[in-house]
Amino acid sequence: MLIKNVLLDGRKTSILIEGNRIASIGGRDKAGRVMDASGMAALPGFVNCHTHAAMTLMRGYADDLPMREWLEGRIWPLEARLTEDDVYWGSRLACLEMIKTGTTCFNDMYWHWHGTARAVKDAGIRAWISAVFVDMDDREKAAEQAALNRRLHSESREYPDRVRFALGPHALYSVSRESLEWAREFSEKHSVPIHFHLSETEKEVRDCVKKHGKRPAHYLNDLGFLSERLVACHSVWLDQGETALMKKHGVRLVYNPVSNMKLGSGIFPYQQAVKAGLLVALGTDGCASNNNLDMLESMKFAALLQKLHHGTTVLPAAEVLRMATLNGARALGLDAGEIREGKLADITLIDLRRPELTPNHSLPSNLAYSAPGSCVDTVICDGKVLMENRRVPGEEEIHEKASEVASGLVKR
Amino acid sequence: MLIKNVLLDGRKTSILIEGNRIASIGGRDKAGRVMDASGMAALPGFVNCHTHAAMTLMRGYADDLPMREWLEGRIWPLEARLTEDDVYWGSRLACLEMIKTGTTCFNDMYWHWHGTARAVKDAGIRAWISAVFVDMDDREKAAEQAALNRRLHSESREYPDRVRFALGPHALYSVSRESLEWAREFSEKHSVPIHFHLSETEKEVRDCVKKHGKRPAHYLNDLGFLSERLVACHSVWLDQGETALMKKHGVRLVYNPVSNMKLGSGIFPYQQAVKAGLLVALGTDGCASNNNLDMLESMKFAALLQKLHHGTTVLPAAEVLRMATLNGARALGLDAGEIREGKLADITLIDLRRPELTPNHSLPSNLAYSAPGSCVDTVICDGKVLMENRRVPGEEEIHEKASEVASGLVKR
Repeated sequence: MLIKNVLLDGRKTSILIEGNRIASIGGRDKAGRVMDASGMAALPGFVNCHTHAAMTLMRGYADDLPMREWLEGRIWPLEARLTEDDVYWGSRLACLEMIKTGTTCFNDMYWHWHGTARAVKDAGIRAWISAVFVDMDDREKAAEQAALNRRLHSESREYPDRVRFALGPHALYSVSRESLEWAREFSEKHSVPIHFHLSETEKEVRDCVKKHGKRPAHYLNDLGFLSERLVACHSVWLDQGETALMKKHGVRLVYNPVSNMKLGSGIFPYQQAVKAGLLVALGTDGCASNNNLDMLESMKFAALLQKLHHGTTVLPAAEVLRMATLNGARALGLDAGEIREGKLADITLIDLRRPELTPNHSLPSNLAYSAPGSCVDTVICDGKVLMENRRVPGEEEIHEKASEVASGLVKR
Repeated sequence: MLIKNVLLDGRKTSILIEGNRIASIGGRDKAGRVMDASGMAALPGFVNCHTHAAMTLMRGYADDLPMREWLEGRIWPLEARLTEDDVYWGSRLACLEMIKTGTTCFNDMYWHWHGTARAVKDAGIRAWISAVFVDMDDREKAAEQAALNRRLHSESREYPDRVRFALGPHALYSVSRESLEWAREFSEKHSVPIHFHLSETEKEVRDCVKKHGKRPAHYLNDLGFLSERLVACHSVWLDQGETALMKKHGVRLVYNPVSNMKLGSGIFPYQQAVKAGLLVALGTDGCASNNNLDMLESMKFAALLQKLHHGTTVLPAAEVLRMATLNGARALGLDAGEIREGKLADITLIDLRRPELTPNHSLPSNLAYSAPGSCVDTVICDGKVLMENRRVPGEEEIHEKASEVASGLVKR
């Protein structure tokens, strides 16, 4: 496929896709299919590095409540009733929303692994999927979860290469030392990433210091848990010793500004992390704490939250755009995140004929601070067109089924 | 016109419009035109209480700079070169963007009054428009500005009733005591609102205390400047004595969360203002400091910024929705902001068949925390349809002309 007349880094060119890779840029090769992208700019697809996709089913279900009532009184009871079919439709809705806002890859952690994996397979998008691993220091549970993860890892091979298995030990306070060690070994042996909630709240850090006599990163370091395979989400409450230690081990951080604001978690120490040389990617978190999956919106929140607290020059437009694309791909070890020869063909086309993108003094600025998700016109993932002219085949059925499943869930 | 099968406060009903007013709700009257709004919910049009519309021309032109370099080095030199024609096309673009995101009325302050007034007239939207009044304690300038405002006030009568004149003394630090007193008298005599920047930055308050020996609200009170006609924008740095004093005089506040974050101004004291009984409306500010005019996005920023700093239960969904509609109308003294018999027919229809609005556990939650501006399908202002099925007549020409004018402006 050839995408012609497309703007790339400010210049009109063409992009040739062969199979699932970008074959060349600016050539005049012939192709089976030619797409005219006049008036559009090409961007790498966004990489959403922290989600719980099926939580779209709980969008708007329990907002504005005290934290404990929200989580323990409303969200957990619903989650206890979820079936794999629910998770399939919730994840289909999430994939649809992500495609419609330009995301081509996400990093997920949730229950009923196969529900999400099937949805990703059917939607044509790309994802690392992990099963929430929680044992609450219960040895029997820990053994069950380890067995489940071994099984899922082996079953994951039956899916297309777009669907990848990751480990999802939930957090330091919900997983035993033994299980963290098990996860570390498994991740090393099988080269799979670890999706982890780290230091999201101040309380988490205080509790860790009380229980283990040290801050979370130091405790995890003792277990050998810090590595290049660790994707540490939130990471709001890190001191300088911790960022230095995490840099030493190549840990990847994921900033979730909307969730951090909505849940009152705190302000991600962006400058400190970057000064330490850490890789920072971007995530939306799940729809119960966001409540959407729009990476363009999260880019704006990401930058503005830093500017409010640290000054107008912090986290400029081009940097937040890279955070949502290349840094995301790097965090997940994905050969994408930029439009270059040989990279995976995960591409979005932005419709520049929109009031929010007019005038076009600076496309990065317009994307970071003005563009809504709906300025995405076309999405290509793994070389295949998933959306064109904002139409995704089958979207009506997905709305209907997901609505049905969501109403059933809250009434069940 | 009859809008039938429309959801209003969760129930399917119909809305009859006669002339520019809502004639009845739920009746079965006959109408010349029937609009089928199946799958849509009706909301009052959003009221954007603080903008500088023509600054769309500077969208993305000078981001991520230190404040002084941004304002004095980039924005002011451009503004000095603006013509009335530039302002017309910048304002047309702003009106287009506002219509496409559900705003039916805005409160503007800028240069070249007639440029914006003509744009509002042609776009079919509603606005209070004021001319920036700056004298920097220069008596000659003050006299010029007063004469200009008297003239504009009288010329404003030639426009349709949707186009209203307001006074726009810029701020305490840029307008002399004499001019503030002149504005107060003129506003009282002619019943026109005063659009004013108040205590946007901490420096502003410090400088006022140094110069006048008291905080801004107290100084303004000495001049009799506080009244129900005063629309005080930003109002980030108010102490409790000031909120009490402003309540006593019925001053209306406008919260601009996106601009306050982007420019690092600070956190609007929402709880303090509401506890004092003050009316709080919502604004986007201009595109140089936002960079869009999407009130749905501003609603999310408004609520989340308060939650981050004051807890998850503060500023719930229904409250922020009211802030963007009814409170806005009240702040401007507009007989709109709710869908009720007799009110002005300023209505938006929200397309519920969108992934971001699925499932629909709570429409206020979905609107406040998930919906993008593009979920607005239809916009009616003053009884006339301005957008239907997301199409606004003439949008291509507006993009083209505004782009042209903007490139010309930065090169001039």
